[in-house]
Amino acid sequence: MPSPGSREVTATTPSDLALRRGDLFDVECPTRELLDRIGSKWVAMIITVLARPTTPELRFAELERAMPGISHRMLSQELKRLTLDGLVHRRVEDSVPVKVFYRLTPLGMSLHGPISVLREWAEANMGAIDARRRSA
Amino acid sequence: MPSPGSREVTATTPSDLALRRGDLFDVECPTRELLDRIGSKWVAMIITVLARPTTPELRFAELERAMPGISHRMLSQELKRLTLDGLVHRRVEDSVPVKVFYRLTPLGMSLHGPISVLREWAEANMGAIDARRRSA
Repeated sequence: MPSPGSREVTATTPSDLALRRGDLFDVECPTRELLDRIGSKWVAMIITVLARPTTPELRFAELERAMPGISHRMLSQELKRLTLDGLVHRRVEDSVPVKVFYRLTPLGMSLHGPISVLREWAEANMGAIDARRRSA
Repeated sequence: MPSPGSREVTATTPSDLALRRGDLFDVECPTRELLDRIGSKWVAMIITVLARPTTPELRFAELERAMPGISHRMLSQELKRLTLDGLVHRRVEDSVPVKVFYRLTPLGMSLHGPISVLREWAEANMGAIDARRRSA
């Protein structure tokens, strides 16, 4: 576990799992709400964009442009949550006007693989599902 | 692509991808809505339960019991959508009273791997995220 004061949160190592692990089938477990969020299209897009080697750190407006269809309010909300959860790091540059940059923490980066797998599945099978819907 | 009349939908093979593939970053693409749904906690739980070798086919009430916290209405809605999308197969047994069974199609089964990867990440890192939230 990271110390409370650390700025970066790293992925949990196997030795930590025995201490505290989520359980999707436990009705009280926050893993349920977490899964709903990390499995959402907007989080998938934020993680995907910031995981690109060409855009490891972006300003708000740059991220907004990279995610067609997202509203200012929604992007702001999602970034705030991802920052609170330690998946995204927010860096404020002391300039006039102030510039704010976003990048993935190591924990956020560790989510890129799992999200890519799900996204790949969705993109690859969209055609089959669409055909199925039309035939229903 | 499966023929419109086929009862089972199989996962898209690589040769189909050139024909029609989703794109999460396309604002018009249904992949966005699909990803939101397959990344949700309830779909993750339905797929996980039905992918267990011990429970490949379940009745509605059995599924409901296996998913603590889900409402009758929500489970009914999710199963209807998953059936329409060709991920779940609904079998009606001609008995009195009529018995309805649900199982995964090959397409639904192909989603089990991707969902497991995301769920594993959420369960493994819930502790680190929870600690981060408490320290914020």
